[in-house]
Amino acid sequence: MITLEQAQQMIAVALAHGTDAGWKPLSAVVLDAGGHPLAFARPETASPGRFEIARAKAYGAVMLGMGGKAQMARAEAQGYFMAAVNGAFEGKVLPVPGGVLIRDDAGVVIGAMGVTGDSSDNDAQAALGGIAAAGLSGEA
Amino acid sequence: MITLEQAQQMIAVALAHGTDAGWKPLSAVVLDAGGHPLAFARPETASPGRFEIARAKAYGAVMLGMGGKAQMARAEAQGYFMAAVNGAFEGKVLPVPGGVLIRDDAGVVIGAMGVTGDSSDNDAQAALGGIAAAGLSGEA
Amino acid sequence: MITLEQAQQMIAVALAHGTDAGWKPLSAVVLDAGGHPLAFARPETASPGRFEIARAKAYGAVMLGMGGKAQMARAEAQGYFMAAVNGAFEGKVLPVPGGVLIRDDAGVVIGAMGVTGDSSDNDAQAALGGIAAAGLSGEA
Amino acid sequence: MITLEQAQQMIAVALAHGTDAGWKPLSAVVLDAGGHPLAFARPETASPGRFEIARAKAYGAVMLGMGGKAQMARAEAQGYFMAAVNGAFEGKVLPVPGGVLIRDDAGVVIGAMGVTGDSSDNDAQAALGGIAAAGLSGEA
Repeated sequence: MITLEQAQQMIAVALAHGTDAGWKPLSAVVLDAGGHPLAFARPETASPGRFEIARAKAYGAVMLGMGGKAQMARAEAQGYFMAAVNGAFEGKVLPVPGGVLIRDDAGVVIGAMGVTGDSSDNDAQAALGGIAAAGLSGEA
Repeated sequence: MITLEQAQQMIAVALAHGTDAGWKPLSAVVLDAGGHPLAFARPETASPGRFEIARAKAYGAVMLGMGGKAQMARAEAQGYFMAAVNGAFEGKVLPVPGGVLIRDDAGVVIGAMGVTGDSSDNDAQAALGGIAAAGLSGEA
Repeated sequence: MITLEQAQQMIAVALAHGTDAGWKPLSAVVLDAGGHPLAFARPETASPGRFEIARAKAYGAVMLGMGGKAQMARAEAQGYFMAAVNGAFEGKVLPVPGGVLIRDDAGVVIGAMGVTGDSSDNDAQAALGGIAAAGLSGEA
Repeated sequence: MITLEQAQQMIAVALAHGTDAGWKPLSAVVLDAGGHPLAFARPETASPGRFEIARAKAYGAVMLGMGGKAQMARAEAQGYFMAAVNGAFEGKVLPVPGGVLIRDDAGVVIGAMGVTGDSSDNDAQAALGGIAAAGLSGEA
Protein backbone atom coordinates (compact mmCIF):
# COMPACT_ATOMS: atom_id res chain seq x y z
CA MET A 1 0.00 0.00 0.00
CA ILE A 2 1.23 3.50 -0.89
CA THR A 3 0.82 5.97 1.96
CA LEU A 4 -0.23 9.57 1.43
CA GLU A 5 3.16 10.58 2.77
CA GLN A 6 4.93 8.52 0.11
CA ALA A 7 2.65 9.86 -2.61
CA GLN A 8 3.38 13.44 -1.59
CA GLN A 9 7.10 12.71 -1.52
CA MET A 10 6.99 11.22 -5.03
CA ILE A 11 5.19 14.27 -6.33
CA ALA A 12 7.53 16.76 -4.62
CA VAL A 13 10.59 14.99 -6.03
CA ALA A 14 9.13 14.70 -9.54
CA LEU A 15 8.14 18.37 -9.71
CA ALA A 16 11.51 19.49 -8.35
CA HIS A 17 13.24 17.29 -10.93
CA GLY A 18 11.52 19.26 -13.69
CA THR A 19 12.24 22.62 -12.11
CA ASP A 20 15.93 21.76 -11.65
CA ALA A 21 16.16 20.60 -15.26
CA GLY A 22 14.55 23.82 -16.54
CA TRP A 23 11.58 21.99 -18.04
CA LYS A 24 8.06 23.35 -18.44
CA PRO A 25 6.11 23.09 -15.14
CA LEU A 26 5.22 19.49 -14.29
CA SER A 27 2.01 18.27 -12.68
CA ALA A 28 1.70 14.85 -11.08
CA VAL A 29 -0.81 12.44 -9.59
CA VAL A 30 -0.38 9.23 -7.60
CA LEU A 31 -3.14 6.60 -7.80
CA ASP A 32 -3.62 3.59 -5.53
CA ALA A 33 -3.97 -0.04 -6.65
CA GLY A 34 -7.63 0.59 -7.52
CA GLY A 35 -6.84 3.58 -9.72
CA HIS A 36 -8.10 6.17 -7.21
CA PRO A 37 -6.20 9.41 -6.44
CA LEU A 38 -4.08 9.68 -3.31
CA ALA A 39 -2.38 12.99 -4.12
CA PHE A 40 -2.10 15.53 -6.92
CA ALA A 41 -0.24 18.79 -7.52
CA ARG A 42 -0.35 21.33 -10.38
CA PRO A 43 1.69 24.54 -10.31
CA GLU A 44 -0.51 27.60 -10.86
CA THR A 45 1.54 28.37 -13.99
CA ALA A 46 0.58 25.09 -15.72
CA SER A 47 -2.43 24.80 -18.06
CA PRO A 48 -5.69 23.92 -16.29
CA GLY A 49 -6.24 20.49 -17.85
CA ARG A 50 -3.24 18.81 -16.25
CA PHE A 51 -5.22 16.74 -13.74
CA GLU A 52 -7.14 14.92 -16.45
CA ILE A 53 -3.96 14.21 -18.43
CA ALA A 54 -1.92 13.04 -15.43
CA ARG A 55 -4.74 10.83 -14.18
CA ALA A 56 -5.36 9.27 -17.59
CA LYS A 57 -1.68 8.36 -17.91
CA ALA A 58 -1.63 6.74 -14.48
CA TYR A 59 -5.11 5.21 -14.71
CA GLY A 60 -4.32 3.31 -17.88
CA ALA A 61 -1.15 1.98 -16.26
CA VAL A 62 -2.99 0.64 -13.19
CA MET A 63 -6.02 -0.70 -14.99
CA LEU A 64 -4.06 -2.48 -17.71
CA GLY A 65 -1.00 -3.39 -15.61
CA MET A 66 1.20 -1.79 -18.29
CA GLY A 67 3.51 1.23 -18.10
CA GLY A 68 3.01 4.09 -20.56
CA LYS A 69 5.84 2.96 -22.83
CA ALA A 70 4.30 -0.48 -23.33
CA GLN A 71 0.89 1.13 -23.88
CA MET A 72 2.36 3.47 -26.50
CA ALA A 73 4.02 0.55 -28.32
CA ARG A 74 0.67 -1.23 -28.42
CA ALA A 75 -1.10 1.94 -29.62
CA GLU A 76 1.41 2.33 -32.45
CA ALA A 77 1.16 -1.33 -33.46
CA GLN A 78 -2.62 -1.67 -33.09
CA GLY A 79 -4.27 1.74 -32.83
CA TYR A 80 -7.87 0.48 -32.82
CA PHE A 81 -7.09 -1.71 -29.81
CA MET A 82 -6.00 1.16 -27.55
CA ALA A 83 -8.84 3.32 -28.90
CA ALA A 84 -11.31 0.63 -27.88
CA VAL A 85 -9.61 0.17 -24.51
CA ASN A 86 -9.97 3.90 -23.98
CA GLY A 87 -13.67 3.57 -24.76
CA ALA A 88 -14.08 0.67 -22.35
CA PHE A 89 -12.58 2.83 -19.61
CA GLU A 90 -14.77 5.82 -20.50
CA GLY A 91 -12.02 7.93 -21.99
CA LYS A 92 -9.72 7.71 -19.01
CA VAL A 93 -6.71 5.96 -20.59
CA LEU A 94 -3.87 7.96 -22.19
CA PRO A 95 -1.30 5.52 -23.61
CA VAL A 96 1.96 7.50 -23.56
CA PRO A 97 5.07 7.71 -21.37
CA GLY A 98 4.56 9.54 -18.11
CA GLY A 99 2.20 6.87 -16.79
CA VAL A 100 4.43 4.72 -14.57
CA LEU A 101 3.51 1.56 -12.64
CA ILE A 102 4.55 1.45 -8.98
CA ARG A 103 5.60 -1.92 -7.52
CA ASP A 104 6.48 -3.02 -4.01
CA ASP A 105 9.47 -5.17 -3.04
CA ALA A 106 7.61 -8.33 -4.02
CA GLY A 107 6.90 -6.90 -7.47
CA VAL A 108 3.20 -6.40 -6.81
CA VAL A 109 1.58 -3.38 -8.50
CA ILE A 110 0.45 -1.05 -5.72
CA GLY A 111 -0.47 1.96 -7.84
CA ALA A 112 0.79 4.30 -10.55
CA MET A 113 2.13 7.78 -11.01
CA GLY A 114 1.16 10.09 -13.85
CA VAL A 115 3.35 13.06 -14.77
CA THR A 116 2.62 15.65 -17.48
CA GLY A 117 3.91 19.03 -18.62
CA ASP A 118 7.10 18.51 -20.63
CA SER A 119 7.89 15.86 -23.27
CA SER A 120 6.44 12.44 -22.54
CA ASP A 121 9.94 10.98 -22.04
CA ASN A 122 10.90 13.74 -19.59
CA ASP A 123 7.59 13.26 -17.78
CA ALA A 124 8.41 9.56 -17.36
CA GLN A 125 11.93 10.32 -16.14
CA ALA A 126 10.58 12.66 -13.46
CA ALA A 127 8.08 10.03 -12.33
CA LEU A 128 10.77 7.37 -12.02
CA GLY A 129 12.85 9.73 -9.88
CA GLY A 130 9.91 10.42 -7.59
CA ILE A 131 9.01 6.76 -7.18
CA ALA A 132 12.62 5.81 -6.41
CA ALA A 133 12.84 8.58 -3.80
CA ALA A 134 9.93 6.95 -1.97
CA GLY A 135 11.78 3.64 -1.88
CA LEU A 136 9.57 1.98 -4.46
CA SER A 137 10.10 0.55 -7.91
CA GLY A 138 8.75 2.17 -11.10
CA GLU A 139 8.04 0.68 -14.53
CA ALA A 140 7.79 3.40 -17.17
CA MET B 1 -4.79 33.44 -8.14
CA ILE B 2 -4.19 30.61 -5.68
CA THR B 3 -0.65 29.25 -5.83
CA LEU B 4 0.16 25.55 -5.52
CA GLU B 5 2.02 26.39 -2.32
CA GLN B 6 -1.08 27.98 -0.82
CA ALA B 7 -3.25 25.07 -1.94
CA GLN B 8 -0.90 22.56 -0.32
CA GLN B 9 -0.83 24.61 2.89
CA MET B 10 -4.64 24.73 3.01
CA ILE B 11 -4.82 20.97 2.60
CA ALA B 12 -2.13 20.25 5.20
CA VAL B 13 -3.87 22.45 7.77
CA ALA B 14 -7.32 21.03 7.04
CA LEU B 15 -6.16 17.42 7.32
CA ALA B 16 -4.22 18.14 10.53
CA HIS B 17 -7.30 19.85 11.96
CA GLY B 18 -9.24 16.61 11.58
CA THR B 19 -6.46 14.46 12.98
CA ASP B 20 -6.05 16.71 16.01
CA ALA B 21 -9.82 16.64 16.62
CA GLY B 22 -9.91 12.84 16.43
CA TRP B 23 -12.19 12.85 13.39
CA LYS B 24 -12.31 10.26 10.65
CA PRO B 25 -9.54 10.82 8.07
CA LEU B 26 -10.20 13.89 5.92
CA SER B 27 -9.43 14.26 2.21
CA ALA B 28 -9.26 17.66 0.53
CA VAL B 29 -8.98 19.29 -2.88
CA VAL B 30 -8.31 22.89 -3.91
CA LEU B 31 -9.71 24.09 -7.27
CA ASP B 32 -8.80 27.27 -9.14
CA ALA B 33 -11.29 29.90 -10.32
CA GLY B 34 -12.22 27.74 -13.34
CA GLY B 35 -12.92 24.66 -11.24
CA HIS B 36 -9.68 22.83 -12.13
CA PRO B 37 -7.62 20.97 -9.49
CA LEU B 38 -4.46 22.52 -8.07
CA ALA B 39 -3.84 20.01 -5.28
CA PHE B 40 -5.45 17.00 -3.63
CA ALA B 41 -4.63 14.67 -0.74
CA ARG B 42 -6.34 11.50 0.55
CA PRO B 43 -4.91 9.47 3.45
CA GLU B 44 -4.43 5.82 2.54
CA THR B 45 -6.89 4.92 5.32
CA ALA B 46 -9.77 6.85 3.70
CA SER B 47 -12.28 5.27 1.31
CA PRO B 48 -11.21 5.37 -2.34
CA GLY B 49 -13.98 7.64 -3.68
CA ARG B 50 -12.93 10.72 -1.75
CA PHE B 51 -11.51 12.60 -4.74
CA GLU B 52 -14.84 12.65 -6.56
CA ILE B 53 -16.68 13.76 -3.42
CA ALA B 54 -14.22 16.50 -2.51
CA ARG B 55 -14.12 17.78 -6.08
CA ALA B 56 -17.91 17.81 -6.45
CA LYS B 57 -18.28 19.84 -3.26
CA ALA B 58 -15.73 22.38 -4.45
CA TYR B 59 -16.81 22.34 -8.11
CA GLY B 60 -20.40 23.25 -7.33
CA ALA B 61 -19.18 26.12 -5.17
CA VAL B 62 -17.03 27.58 -7.94
CA MET B 63 -19.46 27.06 -10.79
CA LEU B 64 -22.48 28.45 -8.95
CA GLY B 65 -20.65 31.04 -6.84
CA MET B 66 -22.32 29.56 -3.71
CA GLY B 67 -20.81 27.86 -0.68
CA GLY B 68 -21.99 24.38 0.31
CA LYS B 69 -24.26 25.67 3.08
CA ALA B 70 -26.19 27.91 0.68
CA GLN B 71 -26.39 25.06 -1.82
CA MET B 72 -27.73 22.70 0.84
CA ALA B 73 -30.37 25.23 1.88
CA ARG B 74 -31.49 25.51 -1.74
CA ALA B 75 -31.52 21.71 -2.14
CA GLU B 76 -33.66 21.33 0.97
CA ALA B 77 -36.09 24.03 -0.16
CA GLN B 78 -36.22 22.99 -3.81
CA GLY B 79 -34.77 19.52 -4.27
CA TYR B 80 -35.55 19.19 -7.97
CA PHE B 81 -33.63 22.42 -8.66
CA MET B 82 -30.31 21.19 -7.27
CA ALA B 83 -30.88 17.77 -8.84
CA ALA B 84 -31.30 19.46 -12.21
CA VAL B 85 -28.29 21.72 -11.63
CA ASN B 86 -26.26 18.61 -10.97
CA GLY B 87 -27.45 17.23 -14.29
CA ALA B 88 -26.51 20.42 -16.12
CA PHE B 89 -22.98 20.05 -14.73
CA GLU B 90 -22.79 16.37 -15.67
CA GLY B 91 -23.11 15.02 -12.15
CA LYS B 92 -20.23 17.03 -10.72
CA VAL B 93 -22.08 19.12 -8.11
CA LEU B 94 -22.53 17.94 -4.50
CA PRO B 95 -24.59 20.53 -2.57
CA VAL B 96 -23.53 20.06 1.06
CA PRO B 97 -21.17 21.76 3.53
CA GLY B 98 -17.52 21.05 2.94
CA GLY B 99 -17.50 22.92 -0.37
CA VAL B 100 -16.10 26.32 0.55
CA LEU B 101 -15.59 29.36 -1.71
CA ILE B 102 -12.19 31.02 -1.54
CA ARG B 103 -12.06 34.81 -1.98
CA ASP B 104 -9.17 37.24 -2.30
CA ASP B 105 -8.83 40.55 -0.44
CA ALA B 106 -11.14 42.27 -2.94
CA GLY B 107 -13.84 39.64 -2.39
CA VAL B 108 -13.39 38.03 -5.82
CA VAL B 109 -13.87 34.25 -5.96
CA ILE B 110 -10.49 32.72 -6.85
CA GLY B 111 -11.33 29.07 -6.27
CA ALA B 112 -12.85 26.65 -3.81
CA MET B 113 -11.81 23.97 -1.35
CA GLY B 114 -13.64 20.68 -0.93
CA VAL B 115 -13.18 18.61 2.23
CA THR B 116 -14.77 15.22 2.93
CA GLY B 117 -14.45 12.39 5.46
CA ASP B 118 -16.24 13.37 8.65
CA SER B 119 -19.61 15.11 9.12
CA SER B 120 -20.33 17.79 6.53
CA ASP B 121 -20.16 20.50 9.19
CA ASN B 122 -16.80 19.27 10.44
CA ASP B 123 -15.57 19.04 6.85
CA ALA B 124 -16.53 22.71 6.36
CA GLN B 125 -14.84 23.74 9.61
CA ALA B 126 -11.59 22.08 8.54
CA ALA B 127 -11.75 23.79 5.15
CA LEU B 128 -12.26 27.21 6.72
CA GLY B 129 -9.23 26.64 8.95
CA GLY B 130 -7.08 25.68 6.00
CA ILE B 131 -8.16 28.66 3.91
CA ALA B 132 -7.53 31.09 6.77
CA ALA B 133 -4.06 29.62 7.32
CA ALA B 134 -3.20 30.54 3.73
CA GLY B 135 -4.25 34.15 4.35
CA LEU B 136 -7.44 33.91 2.30
CA SER B 137 -11.13 34.22 3.07
CA GLY B 138 -13.54 31.27 3.03
CA GLU B 139 -17.35 31.15 2.60
CA ALA B 140 -18.66 27.78 3.76
CA MET C 1 -36.77 31.98 -37.39
CA ILE C 2 -34.82 34.06 -34.86
CA THR C 3 -31.93 35.94 -36.45
CA LEU C 4 -28.58 36.37 -34.75
CA GLU C 5 -29.27 40.10 -34.70
CA GLN C 6 -32.52 39.55 -32.80
CA ALA C 7 -30.85 37.14 -30.40
CA GLN C 8 -28.11 39.64 -29.64
CA GLN C 9 -30.69 42.39 -29.12
CA MET C 10 -32.67 40.22 -26.68
CA ILE C 11 -29.52 39.50 -24.70
CA ALA C 12 -28.38 43.12 -24.61
CA VAL C 13 -31.78 44.28 -23.38
CA ALA C 14 -32.07 41.52 -20.77
CA LEU C 15 -28.60 42.18 -19.34
CA ALA C 16 -29.18 45.94 -19.26
CA HIS C 17 -32.50 45.34 -17.50
CA GLY C 18 -30.66 43.62 -14.65
CA THR C 19 -27.93 46.25 -14.49
CA ASP C 20 -30.49 49.07 -14.38
CA ALA C 21 -32.40 47.28 -11.62
CA GLY C 22 -29.26 46.80 -9.54
CA TRP C 23 -29.49 43.00 -9.70
CA LYS C 24 -26.60 40.54 -9.62
CA PRO C 25 -24.98 40.22 -13.08
CA LEU C 26 -27.22 38.36 -15.53
CA SER C 27 -26.08 35.93 -18.21
CA ALA C 28 -28.31 34.92 -21.12
CA VAL C 29 -28.55 32.50 -24.02
CA VAL C 30 -30.92 32.33 -27.00
CA LEU C 31 -31.60 28.94 -28.56
CA ASP C 32 -33.25 28.26 -31.92
CA ALA C 33 -36.26 26.00 -32.51
CA GLY C 34 -34.00 22.94 -32.37
CA GLY C 35 -32.51 23.89 -29.01
CA HIS C 36 -29.15 25.00 -30.44
CA PRO C 37 -27.38 28.20 -29.31
CA LEU C 38 -27.56 31.34 -31.46
CA ALA C 39 -25.98 33.74 -28.96
CA PHE C 40 -24.75 33.87 -25.38
CA ALA C 41 -23.23 36.48 -23.07
CA ARG C 42 -21.79 36.25 -19.53
CA PRO C 43 -20.27 39.27 -17.78
CA GLU C 44 -16.75 38.53 -16.54
CA THR C 45 -17.98 39.22 -12.98
CA ALA C 46 -20.52 36.35 -13.06
CA SER C 47 -19.71 32.85 -11.83
CA PRO C 48 -18.24 30.57 -14.53
CA GLY C 49 -21.09 28.05 -14.70
CA ARG C 50 -23.70 30.44 -16.09
CA PHE C 51 -23.68 29.02 -19.64
CA GLU C 52 -24.77 25.57 -18.47
CA ILE C 53 -27.53 27.03 -16.28
CA ALA C 54 -28.86 29.44 -18.90
CA ARG C 55 -28.83 26.76 -21.58
CA ALA C 56 -30.57 24.19 -19.39
CA LYS C 57 -33.35 26.65 -18.62
CA ALA C 58 -33.88 27.44 -22.30
CA TYR C 59 -33.31 23.90 -23.54
CA GLY C 60 -36.03 22.43 -21.36
CA ALA C 61 -38.42 25.10 -22.59
CA VAL C 62 -37.79 24.35 -26.27
CA MET C 63 -37.66 20.59 -25.96
CA LEU C 64 -40.81 20.29 -23.85
CA GLY C 65 -42.68 23.28 -25.33
CA MET C 66 -43.22 24.60 -21.79
CA GLY C 67 -41.96 27.79 -20.16
CA GLY C 68 -39.97 27.57 -16.93
CA LYS C 69 -42.94 28.43 -14.73
CA ALA C 70 -44.99 25.56 -16.09
CA GLN C 71 -42.00 23.25 -15.74
CA MET C 72 -41.53 24.31 -12.13
CA ALA C 73 -45.19 23.69 -11.35
CA ARG C 74 -44.86 20.21 -12.80
CA ALA C 75 -41.63 19.58 -10.85
CA GLU C 76 -43.31 20.61 -7.61
CA ALA C 77 -46.37 18.47 -8.29
CA GLN C 78 -44.55 15.45 -9.66
CA GLY C 79 -40.82 15.59 -8.87
CA TYR C 80 -39.91 12.18 -10.27
CA PHE C 81 -41.40 13.15 -13.62
CA MET C 82 -39.12 16.15 -14.16
CA ALA C 83 -36.18 14.18 -12.76
CA ALA C 84 -36.81 11.49 -15.36
CA VAL C 85 -37.27 14.09 -18.11
CA ASN C 86 -33.94 15.55 -17.10
CA GLY C 87 -32.40 12.10 -17.43
CA ALA C 88 -33.96 11.57 -20.84
CA PHE C 89 -32.37 14.82 -22.01
CA GLU C 90 -28.98 13.93 -20.51
CA GLY C 91 -29.12 16.39 -17.65
CA LYS C 92 -29.80 19.41 -19.83
CA VAL C 93 -33.21 20.47 -18.45
CA LEU C 94 -33.50 22.94 -15.54
CA PRO C 95 -37.22 23.40 -14.69
CA VAL C 96 -37.37 26.88 -13.15
CA PRO C 97 -38.34 30.40 -14.24
CA GLY C 98 -35.81 32.10 -16.46
CA GLY C 99 -36.38 29.63 -19.30
CA VAL C 100 -38.78 31.45 -21.61
CA LEU C 101 -40.39 30.20 -24.82
CA ILE C 102 -40.18 32.53 -27.84
CA ARG C 103 -43.15 32.57 -30.25
CA ASP C 104 -43.65 34.30 -33.60
CA ASP C 105 -46.77 36.24 -34.66
CA ALA C 106 -48.56 33.01 -35.51
CA GLY C 107 -47.83 31.60 -32.05
CA VAL C 108 -45.30 29.08 -33.32
CA VAL C 109 -42.39 28.31 -30.96
CA ILE C 110 -39.23 29.52 -32.71
CA GLY C 111 -36.80 29.15 -29.82
CA ALA C 112 -36.24 30.00 -26.17
CA MET C 113 -34.24 32.35 -24.02
CA GLY C 114 -32.51 31.35 -20.78
CA VAL C 115 -31.50 33.97 -18.24
CA THR C 116 -29.66 33.34 -14.95
CA GLY C 117 -27.91 35.32 -12.22
CA ASP C 118 -30.50 36.84 -9.93
CA SER C 119 -33.69 35.28 -8.51
CA SER C 120 -35.53 32.99 -10.92
CA ASP C 121 -38.45 35.40 -11.14
CA ASN C 122 -36.18 38.34 -11.92
CA ASP C 123 -34.36 36.23 -14.50
CA ALA C 124 -37.70 35.54 -16.20
CA GLN C 125 -38.69 39.20 -16.12
CA ALA C 126 -35.43 40.20 -17.82
CA ALA C 127 -35.95 37.55 -20.49
CA LEU C 128 -39.47 38.75 -21.24
CA GLY C 129 -38.17 42.30 -21.65
CA GLY C 130 -35.50 41.18 -24.05
CA ILE C 131 -37.87 39.09 -26.16
CA ALA C 132 -40.40 41.93 -26.38
CA ALA C 133 -37.68 44.36 -27.45
CA ALA C 134 -36.98 42.10 -30.43
CA GLY C 135 -40.62 42.24 -31.44
CA LEU C 136 -41.39 38.68 -30.40
CA SER C 137 -43.65 37.07 -27.83
CA GLY C 138 -42.36 35.33 -24.68
CA GLU C 139 -43.98 32.71 -22.45
CA ALA C 140 -42.27 32.54 -19.07
CA MET D 1 -9.07 38.66 -17.52
CA ILE D 2 -11.11 38.99 -20.72
CA THR D 3 -14.16 41.22 -20.30
CA LEU D 4 -17.51 40.46 -21.92
CA GLU D 5 -17.09 43.64 -23.94
CA GLN D 6 -13.77 42.41 -25.33
CA ALA D 7 -15.23 38.99 -26.06
CA GLN D 8 -18.14 40.51 -27.98
CA GLN D 9 -15.76 42.76 -29.93
CA MET D 10 -13.58 39.78 -30.88
CA ILE D 11 -16.62 37.90 -32.13
CA ALA D 12 -18.04 40.85 -34.08
CA VAL D 13 -14.72 41.43 -35.83
CA ALA D 14 -14.18 37.75 -36.59
CA LEU D 15 -17.65 37.30 -38.07
CA ALA D 16 -17.36 40.51 -40.13
CA HIS D 17 -13.98 39.31 -41.39
CA GLY D 18 -15.64 36.25 -42.87
CA THR D 19 -18.55 38.18 -44.33
CA ASP D 20 -16.22 40.71 -45.97
CA ALA D 21 -14.13 37.90 -47.42
CA GLY D 22 -17.18 36.15 -48.85
CA TRP D 23 -16.66 33.04 -46.72
CA LYS D 24 -19.35 30.73 -45.42
CA PRO D 25 -21.01 32.12 -42.26
CA LEU D 26 -18.67 31.98 -39.25
CA SER D 27 -19.65 31.22 -35.67
CA ALA D 28 -17.40 32.06 -32.73
CA VAL D 29 -17.03 31.55 -29.00
CA VAL D 30 -14.71 33.16 -26.44
CA LEU D 31 -13.80 31.14 -23.33
CA ASP D 32 -12.16 32.41 -20.15
CA ALA D 33 -8.97 31.01 -18.61
CA GLY D 34 -10.94 28.13 -17.08
CA GLY D 35 -12.55 27.13 -20.38
CA HIS D 36 -15.98 28.62 -19.58
CA PRO D 37 -17.98 30.60 -22.19
CA LEU D 38 -18.08 34.39 -22.05
CA ALA D 39 -19.79 35.00 -25.39
CA PHE D 40 -20.96 33.14 -28.48
CA ALA D 41 -22.61 34.03 -31.76
CA ARG D 42 -23.96 31.86 -34.63
CA PRO D 43 -25.69 33.39 -37.67
CA GLU D 44 -29.11 31.87 -38.27
CA THR D 45 -27.85 30.67 -41.66
CA ALA D 46 -25.12 28.47 -40.13
CA SER D 47 -25.61 24.80 -39.29
CA PRO D 48 -26.96 24.15 -35.77
CA GLY D 49 -23.95 22.32 -34.30
CA ARG D 50 -21.58 25.28 -34.47
CA PHE D 51 -21.52 25.95 -30.73
CA GLU D 52 -20.12 22.52 -29.91
CA ILE D 53 -17.48 22.81 -32.65
CA ALA D 54 -16.39 26.32 -31.72
CA ARG D 55 -16.24 25.45 -28.04
CA ALA D 56 -14.28 22.24 -28.60
CA LYS D 57 -11.68 24.11 -30.65
CA ALA D 58 -11.28 26.73 -27.93
CA TYR D 59 -11.60 24.33 -24.99
CA GLY D 60 -8.75 22.12 -26.16
CA ALA D 61 -6.57 25.20 -26.58
CA VAL D 62 -7.21 26.41 -23.03
CA MET D 63 -6.99 23.04 -21.32
CA LEU D 64 -3.82 21.93 -23.06
CA GLY D 65 -2.19 25.34 -23.40
CA MET D 66 -1.74 24.68 -27.16
CA GLY D 67 -3.22 26.47 -30.17
CA GLY D 68 -5.16 24.49 -32.78
CA LYS D 69 -2.24 24.33 -35.21
CA ALA D 70 0.03 22.70 -32.61
CA GLN D 71 -2.77 20.33 -31.65
CA MET D 72 -3.31 19.36 -35.28
CA ALA D 73 0.41 18.72 -35.78
CA ARG D 74 0.38 16.42 -32.75
CA ALA D 75 -2.78 14.67 -33.99
CA GLU D 76 -1.19 14.06 -37.38
CA ALA D 77 2.05 12.76 -35.85
CA GLN D 78 0.43 10.67 -33.11
CA GLY D 79 -3.28 10.22 -33.81
CA TYR D 80 -4.00 7.90 -30.89
CA PHE D 81 -2.60 10.50 -28.48
CA MET D 82 -5.04 13.26 -29.43
CA ALA D 83 -7.87 10.73 -29.59
CA ALA D 84 -7.09 9.68 -26.02
CA VAL D 85 -6.73 13.30 -24.89
CA ASN D 86 -10.19 13.93 -26.28
CA GLY D 87 -11.45 11.01 -24.21
CA ALA D 88 -9.81 12.34 -21.06
CA PHE D 89 -11.68 15.62 -21.61
CA GLU D 90 -15.00 13.84 -22.26
CA GLY D 91 -15.09 14.49 -25.99
CA LYS D 92 -14.67 18.25 -25.74
CA VAL D 93 -11.36 18.71 -27.60
CA LEU D 94 -11.23 19.37 -31.36
CA PRO D 95 -7.56 19.59 -32.47
CA VAL D 96 -7.65 21.76 -35.61
CA PRO D 97 -6.96 25.40 -36.50
CA GLY D 98 -9.64 27.82 -35.40
CA GLY D 99 -8.93 27.22 -31.72
CA VAL D 100 -6.70 30.16 -30.80
CA LEU D 101 -5.05 30.88 -27.42
CA ILE D 102 -5.50 34.41 -26.06
CA ARG D 103 -2.60 35.89 -24.07
CA ASP D 104 -2.29 39.10 -22.09
CA ASP D 105 0.65 41.53 -22.28
CA ALA D 106 2.67 39.34 -19.91
CA GLY D 107 2.14 36.30 -22.15
CA VAL D 108 -0.20 34.57 -19.70
CA VAL D 109 -3.05 32.55 -21.26
CA ILE D 110 -6.30 34.29 -20.30
CA GLY D 111 -8.67 32.31 -22.51
CA ALA D 112 -9.22 31.11 -26.05
CA MET D 113 -11.35 31.85 -29.08
CA GLY D 114 -12.94 29.18 -31.24
CA VAL D 115 -14.11 29.99 -34.77
CA THR D 116 -15.83 27.59 -37.18
CA GLY D 117 -17.69 27.74 -40.48
CA ASP D 118 -15.19 28.03 -43.32
CA SER D 119 -11.86 26.22 -43.80
CA SER D 120 -9.91 25.67 -40.60
CA ASP D 121 -7.19 28.05 -41.76
CA ASN D 122 -9.69 30.77 -42.57
CA ASP D 123 -11.38 30.18 -39.22
CA ALA D 124 -8.04 30.72 -37.48
CA GLN D 125 -7.33 33.88 -39.51
CA ALA D 126 -10.68 35.36 -38.49
CA ALA D 127 -10.00 34.53 -34.83
CA LEU D 128 -6.58 36.20 -34.94
CA GLY D 129 -8.15 39.34 -36.41
CA GLY D 130 -10.78 39.45 -33.69
CA ILE D 131 -8.28 38.95 -30.89
CA ALA D 132 -5.98 41.66 -32.25
CA ALA D 133 -8.91 44.09 -32.51
CA ALA D 134 -9.47 43.67 -28.77
CA GLY D 135 -5.86 44.57 -28.06
CA LEU D 136 -4.82 41.05 -27.12
CA SER D 137 -2.40 38.52 -28.54
CA GLY D 138 -3.49 35.31 -30.29
CA GLU D 139 -1.65 32.02 -30.88
CA ALA D 140 -3.39 30.02 -33.61
